[in-house]
Amino acid sequence: MPAVVQEHGSGKVLMLAYINELAWRKTLETGKAHYWSRSRKSLWLKGESSGHLQLIKNILVDCDDDTVIYQVQQLGGAACHKGYHSCFYRCVSGDELHLCEEPVFDPEKVYGK
Amino acid sequence: MPAVVQEHGSGKVLMLAYINELAWRKTLETGKAHYWSRSRKSLWLKGESSGHLQLIKNILVDCDDDTVIYQVQQLGGAACHKGYHSCFYRCVSGDELHLCEEPVFDPEKVYGK
Repeated sequence: MPAVVQEHGSGKVLMLAYINELAWRKTLETGKAHYWSRSRKSLWLKGESSGHLQLIKNILVDCDDDTVIYQVQQLGGAACHKGYHSCFYRCVSGDELHLCEEPVFDPEKVYGK
Repeated sequence: MPAVVQEHGSGKVLMLAYINELAWRKTLETGKAHYWSRSRKSLWLKGESSGHLQLIKNILVDCDDDTVIYQVQQLGGAACHKGYHSCFYRCVSGDELHLCEEPVFDPEKVYGK
């Protein structure tokens, strides 16, 4: 099930990730956003390696019970592993994609090379 | 591919829907949000029956090229077929879901019984 991750306060959409029953339960228990990594097939505590945890402020559920919104406080100021505040740092302009955000951190420094 | 639909201006997340190549192309061509209905297996112009079209103001693309955000002006004031401004009209409180929005219209009047 997709989880839209939105910054509490600003309303900015930071990322979209996926949850399963386990990730949902761990999120509710700990107050820290957990996801299910579809590529690694494992539980993923967001910020485990970077320290950029997402603290849950509110959770919304949609009309079909098949999508949730995690409203979070994003520690470290950036949600994207590429160093941007939001994973949605590019916008469509005509037929092209343009950068519409500046990076917040250098991924090499946070994750190592 | 999921499309997060966000109200331009307020930043409120209205719904999540899915797009394919055809829906993406029609959206760019017309400036009106089109999706791919996975249940009906057909192109879906949002607001076709209700008149509640979504006019595209901006489109963002995520770091993995597998999710987009449509930032829209929502005509008719409501995105949800159940009559709410947003499909995410329920919030988690402890082990329960609570209404956290009032309906904007009566679905029976807009869609017929």
